[in-house]
Amino acid sequence: MVIKIPIEISARHIHLCQKDLEKLFGRGYQLKKLRNLTQPGQFAAKETVNIKKGKKGIENVRIVGPLRSKTQVELSLTDAIFLRIKIPIRKSGNLKGSPGILIVGPKGKLRLKEGVICPWRHIHLSKKDAEKLNLKEGDLVQFQVKGKRGLIFNNVMIRVSEDFRTCLHLDTDEGNACGISEKSQGTLIIPNI
Amino acid sequence: MVIKIPIEISARHIHLCQKDLEKLFGRGYQLKKLRNLTQPGQFAAKETVNIKKGKKGIENVRIVGPLRSKTQVELSLTDAIFLRIKIPIRKSGNLKGSPGILIVGPKGKLRLKEGVICPWRHIHLSKKDAEKLNLKEGDLVQFQVKGKRGLIFNNVMIRVSEDFRTCLHLDTDEGNACGISEKSQGTLIIPNI
Repeated sequence: MVIKIPIEISARHIHLCQKDLEKLFGRGYQLKKLRNLTQPGQFAAKETVNIKKGKKGIENVRIVGPLRSKTQVELSLTDAIFLRIKIPIRKSGNLKGSPGILIVGPKGKLRLKEGVICPWRHIHLSKKDAEKLNLKEGDLVQFQVKGKRGLIFNNVMIRVSEDFRTCLHLDTDEGNACGISEKSQGTLIIPNI
Repeated sequence: MVIKIPIEISARHIHLCQKDLEKLFGRGYQLKKLRNLTQPGQFAAKETVNIKKGKKGIENVRIVGPLRSKTQVELSLTDAIFLRIKIPIRKSGNLKGSPGILIVGPKGKLRLKEGVICPWRHIHLSKKDAEKLNLKEGDLVQFQVKGKRGLIFNNVMIRVSEDFRTCLHLDTDEGNACGISEKSQGTLIIPNI
């Protein structure tokens, strides 16, 4: 079975918990919305932070809101190689054993103990679409992108929620490897092989 | 038909012509070898240059020898997005209409008019292997990489020469998109679909 789905590229970003937000931006600070993201309720904040590992660092890493229960930094493997850290490919929220990093905000620094991951490529499926396709949270599928740099991704993880708007999320390496940087479209293929 | 082939990741690099080498490093300069690359005769030079586009720049871009008839800069799309330039996906040597860039060496600067490309993923095939597989220069095939970030690349270009040692060349985005950074192996699949 095949179905057309929009593709979005997630650049490096960070999710913060309340405590860490206050450590970096001061007590009682609240994130300001820059723009809404495609997933309902999610937004790119106006605020950014810098991250550092030894002598290497990346500036202006965008904060994505709303706040979460745990701070999480999502980088591409290109970023990780630049920073000289080894990061696991993980589903969002699964941070156990992942490396930490130094986060620098305008009002303070935070030495994150763990929480730096590379996001496992995934498809946000609305509950309705998941039922239609007979797919459930955690299922793995294939996804085909056409074009000069066309390819078929294996092991694309299915995420399901009533709140989700159906789309594929790739990181910047994956988006560049198939030659798309702006909004595009591809084909979900079941099953994964 | 399927055949196992080693994979190599090419980081950003630059090939120089004699004239441009002398402009950047001084008259009569000769490249020093840092280490041999897999393709016979090719080597990473000890020398690096900086490249600049407006306010953005990348330092220490490795020179790959020997010298060529035309200067050519090979970047990943991640690099191109960082530098805010749009570069075409091209076979090595096909530079027409590609953008230029400012190259800075220890003895001089060079405003390259065209020659910045993103390399089209390709398989170097020895003439013997090409005959065995019934493939010729310019053919397009598929290539499968297994693992957590497993995928199947379409449109992998076949390059044939008696001098070649058979292997797949990916750029860093493509290597990261399939989760390999060190030497690895994958499967050539004929035909391309």
